[in-house]
Amino acid sequence: MHPLLKKEGFILDIDGVIGKGETPITEGVNAVKKLKKAGKKLVFVSNNSTRSRSIMINRFRRFGLNVREDEMLLCTFATARYLSREKQGAKIYTTGERGLIEELELAGHKIVEEEAEYLVVGSNRQINYDIITKALRYCLSDVRYVATNPDRIFPSSSGPTPGTGMLVGALYWMTDRMPDVIVGKPSEVIMREALDILGLRADEVAVAGDQIEVDVKAGRNIGAETLLVLSGVTNADNIQKMIQRFGEEPDYILGHLGELI
Amino acid sequence: MHPLLKKEGFILDIDGVIGKGETPITEGVNAVKKLKKAGKKLVFVSNNSTRSRSIMINRFRRFGLNVREDEMLLCTFATARYLSREKQGAKIYTTGERGLIEELELAGHKIVEEEAEYLVVGSNRQINYDIITKALRYCLSDVRYVATNPDRIFPSSSGPTPGTGMLVGALYWMTDRMPDVIVGKPSEVIMREALDILGLRADEVAVAGDQIEVDVKAGRNIGAETLLVLSGVTNADNIQKMIQRFGEEPDYILGHLGELI
Repeated sequence: MHPLLKKEGFILDIDGVIGKGETPITEGVNAVKKLKKAGKKLVFVSNNSTRSRSIMINRFRRFGLNVREDEMLLCTFATARYLSREKQGAKIYTTGERGLIEELELAGHKIVEEEAEYLVVGSNRQINYDIITKALRYCLSDVRYVATNPDRIFPSSSGPTPGTGMLVGALYWMTDRMPDVIVGKPSEVIMREALDILGLRADEVAVAGDQIEVDVKAGRNIGAETLLVLSGVTNADNIQKMIQRFGEEPDYILGHLGELI
Repeated sequence: MHPLLKKEGFILDIDGVIGKGETPITEGVNAVKKLKKAGKKLVFVSNNSTRSRSIMINRFRRFGLNVREDEMLLCTFATARYLSREKQGAKIYTTGERGLIEELELAGHKIVEEEAEYLVVGSNRQINYDIITKALRYCLSDVRYVATNPDRIFPSSSGPTPGTGMLVGALYWMTDRMPDVIVGKPSEVIMREALDILGLRADEVAVAGDQIEVDVKAGRNIGAETLLVLSGVTNADNIQKMIQRFGEEPDYILGHLGELI
């Protein structure tokens, strides 16, 4: 039996572990079914900043996996939840798109153009000069500045596309200001939300994902044991380079999540 | 007589010296008339990356100043001219807007979407996700990357707005790549074009402008004497802070260009 199977809970990355975009990774999907059958507590944590939980739950259903809303922690929802801890019904200006706005509003926050208390930066495929100008001006003011996630490039099926980090970088370049809080992995903000949802301590869970600088670092940041799977961005060919580049070594490495069981 | 009046030529900034946006600075406008009458060679150099020379010449006409096309060196035109030195009829993908495209095409270059030989980054008030994605992908390739100017924020009449530097910063954040060439001030690229247009050596000209990190640095970069005027961004109140912040001291300081004569 793999030593990580002693853990009570698993914090699982989605892309590169369970699926690649719209395509399921069969071994990952089957492993999740077996972990659930074995009574393990699961939470899926993803830096997706454009989709709400309901959109992602539908994708899982197409993969043949039934997951509950409270097993799904996207950084859209995690951002809404984090903001609620700071302020109930916050007035927010956001650069983000529908999935993020949906989660912020569901959490009781108000999306405003003027007199916002928070600037929330998330990716937006409808980004324009007006949105960037508004974000710039809020960034130059003293409103609190929260970013959904730090990802600079998102590897889409058509090739690399700008991630939320594109906006974080543009704002930093213009104002010398970085976000007060970054929610998504490897930040411990989203990982603490995940532990809170599981009701477990860091030593009771394993953190699994396909990226050293995102998933392994996120696990390290809360002191959990980490599993790197080679079914996504990191693979058998580039793993040594990745470990060197990011200076972090996972506790365990497997070809895919299925090898855990 | 002011010692700079011994110079044969003047490289003059526009915004903060001759006008503020659409509004003329009377002393600056009158000084230009007097310098022309005295037979001085002039060239106006501006980091404006969205306007063509013809648009700016029309603005000068409204100020009551007649200037020739060859006295007007905006970084749109300077970029087109610089590219022509590297390659005639270059295939260019640009993020920029009409004023830049107009100058690139006038210089005989071809604006393309695919298989560009150059990525030319300039500001665009119609910027969108598709343009940034294309720029990102070119940036990740080995095409030559030229930026019109480095300005991070443009101070518009409605408040701060993103400059070309917003895109340079976003691309740098995503790809770790800075432009191979930046044309606009304080780069010596545009200043060498200005000397070339004047047909003068650096010691035969004075460089005047309202910003230490842009105009004074640009003059220094070619070894010309510099004049800072306090009719724009730098004023009597902030000058000491600006000198400290940017670590450059102009050779001469005047309230406005009119005090030169």
